[in-house]
Amino acid sequence: MANLYDIAYDMEKAIRESTEFQSLKQAFETVMNDQNSKEMFENFRDTQLALQEKQMTGQEITEDEVEKARKIVELVQQHAGISKLMEAEQRLNTVISDVSRIITKPLEELYGAE
Amino acid sequence: MANLYDIAYDMEKAIRESTEFQSLKQAFETVMNDQNSKEMFENFRDTQLALQEKQMTGQEITEDEVEKARKIVELVQQHAGISKLMEAEQRLNTVISDVSRIITKPLEELYGAE
Repeated sequence: MANLYDIAYDMEKAIRESTEFQSLKQAFETVMNDQNSKEMFENFRDTQLALQEKQMTGQEITEDEVEKARKIVELVQQHAGISKLMEAEQRLNTVISDVSRIITKPLEELYGAE
Repeated sequence: MANLYDIAYDMEKAIRESTEFQSLKQAFETVMNDQNSKEMFENFRDTQLALQEKQMTGQEITEDEVEKARKIVELVQQHAGISKLMEAEQRLNTVISDVSRIITKPLEELYGAE
């Protein structure tokens, strides 16, 4: 039987070398190397995370916060570099969730069969 | 470059063949093949899931519910078959979270380096 951890390291390498990861890395570095883009992206990310946390802990989200988040999304969507970064994130997330679905299949079959 | 999906299928196979998964499968089937154990386990699982959902959606958990959950945990811990199943689940979860930590390392490095 192949060692699970060896396979995991092969997979880490394959992800690192994948077009999806390389594109994400490039898009991320482009954004991070420009002070203006970097601030806009970090502001966007912080706002998203804060809203997600409120949602997950059942805290109320005010209309003001929704409006503020909507404006930031509009702003970053118009920013070519950040849009590219978000698309690259989305593509890598798709790959990782595919992989995750494949490797958890044995468990799903076991618990689904009860 | 090795194909990511090929590696994912290798990993699925390795998980399926692992001692951890095989032990879990056996423990699960032992519990499921006994009507009394099966009901106790499903009752335990349903209670845990219901409490988790309440917690995640920020709903209040009553003292009665905490007490009920505590009693069910005590009960299943004294049940040899279910205890064995829960230990087997824990061991497989450890393997899967190790694997998951390894394969998400490239992303962590990228975002941690900003």
